[in-house]
Amino acid sequence: MENGSQQWRFHGNNRLKSTLTISLRGIIDMLIGNLGTDDPRPIIPLGNGDPSQFPCFRTSTKAEEAVVDALHSAKYNGYAPIAGVLSARRAVANYLNRDLPYKLTADDVYLTSGCLQAIEVALAAVTHPGANILLPRPGFTFYESRAAYENLQVRHFDLLPDKGWEVDVGAVEALADENTVAIVIINPGNPCGSVYSYEHLKLVAETARKLGILVIADEVYSHLTFGNTPFVPMGVFGSIVPVLSLGSISKTWVVPGWRLGWLATTDPNGILQKSGIVESITGYCNITTNPATFIQGSVPQILENTKDEFFSKLIGTLKEAAEKCMDGIKEVPCLTFPNKPEGSMFVLVKLNVSLLEDISDDLDFCMKLAKEEKVIIVPAGIAFGMKNWVRITFACEISAVEEGMRRIKAFYQRHAKKQ
Amino acid sequence: MENGSQQWRFHGNNRLKSTLTISLRGIIDMLIGNLGTDDPRPIIPLGNGDPSQFPCFRTSTKAEEAVVDALHSAKYNGYAPIAGVLSARRAVANYLNRDLPYKLTADDVYLTSGCLQAIEVALAAVTHPGANILLPRPGFTFYESRAAYENLQVRHFDLLPDKGWEVDVGAVEALADENTVAIVIINPGNPCGSVYSYEHLKLVAETARKLGILVIADEVYSHLTFGNTPFVPMGVFGSIVPVLSLGSISKTWVVPGWRLGWLATTDPNGILQKSGIVESITGYCNITTNPATFIQGSVPQILENTKDEFFSKLIGTLKEAAEKCMDGIKEVPCLTFPNKPEGSMFVLVKLNVSLLEDISDDLDFCMKLAKEEKVIIVPAGIAFGMKNWVRITFACEISAVEEGMRRIKAFYQRHAKKQ
Ligand SMILES: Cc1ncc(COP(=O)(O)O)c(C=O)c1O
Ligand SMILES: Cc1ncc(COP(=O)(O)O)c(C=O)c1O
Repeated sequence: MENGSQQWRFHGNNRLKSTLTISLRGIIDMLIGNLGTDDPRPIIPLGNGDPSQFPCFRTSTKAEEAVVDALHSAKYNGYAPIAGVLSARRAVANYLNRDLPYKLTADDVYLTSGCLQAIEVALAAVTHPGANILLPRPGFTFYESRAAYENLQVRHFDLLPDKGWEVDVGAVEALADENTVAIVIINPGNPCGSVYSYEHLKLVAETARKLGILVIADEVYSHLTFGNTPFVPMGVFGSIVPVLSLGSISKTWVVPGWRLGWLATTDPNGILQKSGIVESITGYCNITTNPATFIQGSVPQILENTKDEFFSKLIGTLKEAAEKCMDGIKEVPCLTFPNKPEGSMFVLVKLNVSLLEDISDDLDFCMKLAKEEKVIIVPAGIAFGMKNWVRITFACEISAVEEGMRRIKAFYQRHAKKQ
Repeated sequence: MENGSQQWRFHGNNRLKSTLTISLRGIIDMLIGNLGTDDPRPIIPLGNGDPSQFPCFRTSTKAEEAVVDALHSAKYNGYAPIAGVLSARRAVANYLNRDLPYKLTADDVYLTSGCLQAIEVALAAVTHPGANILLPRPGFTFYESRAAYENLQVRHFDLLPDKGWEVDVGAVEALADENTVAIVIINPGNPCGSVYSYEHLKLVAETARKLGILVIADEVYSHLTFGNTPFVPMGVFGSIVPVLSLGSISKTWVVPGWRLGWLATTDPNGILQKSGIVESITGYCNITTNPATFIQGSVPQILENTKDEFFSKLIGTLKEAAEKCMDGIKEVPCLTFPNKPEGSMFVLVKLNVSLLEDISDDLDFCMKLAKEEKVIIVPAGIAFGMKNWVRITFACEISAVEEGMRRIKAFYQRHAKKQ
């Protein structure tokens, strides 16, 4: 205290200062802040991966019933065990077992508040002073944010647009050193809409084994595939390399707001146990919060009772929406895509600014598009480190995708360089 | 890789190794593991603060309806904004405003996954290299765990059993230095059952102001008072010192499994804004997960529509249970309590081992009590740093409290020193 004026000793945490500017949520908020205000047309939200607001993406009634039943039973009003409600862990194990050549048990599964918290747990469990992790570029920036918060050093390897956004395995080998602990694979891919083949995933597993690092497999878009490549979980290769498999009901059941995800140790040789990773996972779960207990309690019913028709309709809608989106992009000369998306909800599109009169880069493109056309798409430069690319979400009412593409075309025509 | 045998480069995070041994959940699991197995009598769970399993503590039907309504509306299946659903933030602000001499707005409120996540956010927001925080002893060990994880140094001040577990203000002044950023106050108190007077809270506020530090007020047991001292929120003194007020619906509505809490900046002078704490709070919310969106969506109805009768019945039950518990303790010579509890769900009881034949300390007492009588109470030595004290939860079916106290008496009689 000086001169009688009050002095305070606290101040903000510097590590938290920049989290907003690099987050997707922050970027989308910025675009929304730039929307044209006099324009009476509806907003076309092709920005984030949350189609739950659209009637055609409404979740299954079975899932809603399951939650209401669990709530009304009054058995799930209390605290859950550290790793989650046992019946729910068992149900997730059974759900994952459908696609695995060995059997997980409830003990291999930790319930988390969405796949986001599974990422949080996984990164916390592997970090230690000096460690580094290999992340894909483009990828999902929550990994970068959490790694920064944990002081886990990040090294980026490229995904190759000309090879279906496959991992540049040579680059991975060149990047890793004795302090590398893990590699992250997102499949089906955000932001690329890619789906990896069995052979490519096996190659990644073998590379990780060679480097002595574990694989964090983000499979939040699992089973959301509509191309020629079927979804193969990374855990299939768990006997080659230990895998932390992350998932949730957010995308596959279109309920990201329910905050129910999981981390599974898909590791038949028990290496994660021996190396202390399992203890760290439990330790972290113990000092953070669980998903709501009654939502956990509803998981067995959700996973077991949702009808196949729900998924076939969902995937049919995504496929149709993806096609309309591709058709629309083909009509906009400044936009090209290296691959048709085969899964997830996104396509990553290259922007050729040299065809445009007064647009300096992807951010400028997206900001002006929001202002002039009320269409939200994500500038991939700040969002994913892919300057002059944009990410378009097609998980939207079909008519909205079509209208969005028409507006993007009109925008292009207005800004195109005159010949 | 040596000699062809696979070497792995990852290992567990050492900072996460010991979280289980010091956590309440870990300790209670250990006691449950020690329960007598041949004994056909039911377990008497006087360990944790979660009475939701007992019919007499069932939450209000209005609250359950509110959640079902929000779910069925299908308006809350998607991601929530970073700080939470606006209507819910506004409802929490209004709820807190009932007891404050100034008005909070929705902007002052951040929704969290229970009060636990509010603690996580608060500690993350104030921490920086070299900083330290003042925590009460006895207190709630989640603070110690999170502080350790954040590398925030902890200094303990005593609560004074002979003064109604008030803060030892002189000790606080002696402990603080130029790196101290905050002091934590839990009121109503866990594990002590204490409720602080207006005057004492004001003294704490003035002390914090003198030291230039902020107050983190954990009010998760707010309004659960049944003695002579009414609940006064710390935010009442927000113009003396900036306060982060933490709360939740977990205890007051008996739904800890719903994971809905909040952090409010009760700071009419905007000091938390100026000092960057607000930016850090938002920054942390941005890199972690939200409470389930539909539960957020139900908050306005829950806070506004729950009938007064629900609370008067709840408090009546707690008061009666507390009295039965005190009556029981009086019959056990080795147990004494410095004060009758006036709030929360707990009483902290002194154990005189010199009256016992073959019990070495509080942990030994609790372990043998679990084994021989199937009664769970918490050893306060490892749990709260209060060697030879035990914490008894009375938030339980009245008949269970009575049965528990009878068993504790029988246990005492069997182990008492022969004259
Ligand atoms: C690759 C990826 N991982 C994780 C998440 C988060 O999933 P959840 O909603 O289950 O937390 C997302 C959400 O968009 C994502 O795209
Ligand atoms: C003092 C204190 N703070 C916070 C909490 C956690 O509350 P919530 O269930 O809302 O996360 C508890 C729970 O026992 C507590 O005793």
